[in-house]
Amino acid sequence: MDWLQREIQLAPKRRGFHLVTSEILREVPEIREFAMGLSHVFIKHTSASLSLGENADPTVRSDMESYFNDVVPENAPYFEHTMEGPDDMPAHIKAALLGSSLMLPIRDGKLALGTWQGIYLCEHRDHGGRRGLVVTICGVRIHRIRS
Amino acid sequence: MDWLQREIQLAPKRRGFHLVTSEILREVPEIREFAMGLSHVFIKHTSASLSLGENADPTVRSDMESYFNDVVPENAPYFEHTMEGPDDMPAHIKAALLGSSLMLPIRDGKLALGTWQGIYLCEHRDHGGRRGLVVTICGVRIHRIRS
Amino acid sequence: MDWLQREIQLAPKRRGFHLVTSEILREVPEIREFAMGLSHVFIKHTSASLSLGENADPTVRSDMESYFNDVVPENAPYFEHTMEGPDDMPAHIKAALLGSSLMLPIRDGKLALGTWQGIYLCEHRDHGGRRGLVVTICGVRIHRIRS
Repeated sequence: MDWLQREIQLAPKRRGFHLVTSEILREVPEIREFAMGLSHVFIKHTSASLSLGENADPTVRSDMESYFNDVVPENAPYFEHTMEGPDDMPAHIKAALLGSSLMLPIRDGKLALGTWQGIYLCEHRDHGGRRGLVVTICGVRIHRIRS
Repeated sequence: MDWLQREIQLAPKRRGFHLVTSEILREVPEIREFAMGLSHVFIKHTSASLSLGENADPTVRSDMESYFNDVVPENAPYFEHTMEGPDDMPAHIKAALLGSSLMLPIRDGKLALGTWQGIYLCEHRDHGGRRGLVVTICGVRIHRIRS
Repeated sequence: MDWLQREIQLAPKRRGFHLVTSEILREVPEIREFAMGLSHVFIKHTSASLSLGENADPTVRSDMESYFNDVVPENAPYFEHTMEGPDDMPAHIKAALLGSSLMLPIRDGKLALGTWQGIYLCEHRDHGGRRGLVVTICGVRIHRIRS
């Protein structure tokens, strides 16, 4: 049983849904050493979120942004938490709907994702800045099996 | 510390919410060997999802389907990703709302679910076909405690 | 590799979103013994849920309640599961949207949450009563590293 835990930062993104699989994997290259395991990716914020989504057509990601703006409107008449700007309370709601972490299986040194799955960083603020993640991997390293 | 990882296939389901606890457990009978642990169930698709829900009254599941069809309509005027059919973009959105994986506690060789909890396969496509899952279990096997 | 698993009960809460980080941590003080790991918090119910949210301004939590009441109305004309009261089917839907468990990283004996993150117990029933959770921690204990 081996563990790896690392805090990483994602570069600032504009509001919207962004494919960040490569950006995350670049920060934890040791994933290739794990024969089997689980990788937990956690975002330390409540106004951005993580989700798995279609990794090919960019209009899927822009449609996601359109949909969530439609169903979680800014300036709902009943919002009381308005002092941090009209995009703040909707950001908290979207983050709750989409979730703050992903748990992904590891197999043969890679994330065992489906062909069309990619990791989305969902930036719900207009100016969210850098976003901090904690990646925690637990599993069985390859050399332990092979040796 | 013991690990089990297995890729399984769920038989095709019609669009809707389906109780699949038994269908999944049948594929990983070794769960009964674990005294304590966690079971991760992951779906390798972005147009179907996994959720925990009420396991008794079938109208809960049909009401779930009705609700998600209501709140995620087909043919929203702002959708651009339309080339894969009117059920495709809503399927991606529903999958993001409901989630692609479940982490479930194991206790005494069984999933430690509440009395009324069951695993739902949420099929969001009209013709989704077979769905691939990756089940990853980590925990402590019973014989290790007893011996 | 060390494990801890414990079933705990949260005191009854009125319908709404409640910050319960302290109430949960009080029940698993051993978390301070873990140098690194993951903590899984699971709710054994389908009409209440767990979420991470902003931990400072109470109006964020009341706005969450207002929003979910708005987007998941009671007495939708298509609901068939109505025999357990008008708050029951909406409770199942809200629980599916928000999720039944959280996986949280542990670092240096503490949950490695962001500054503004707290654990919400989201009580979706009018009279939900006590709520049972299963907390499962796996990780590396501090004394194992230091000794």
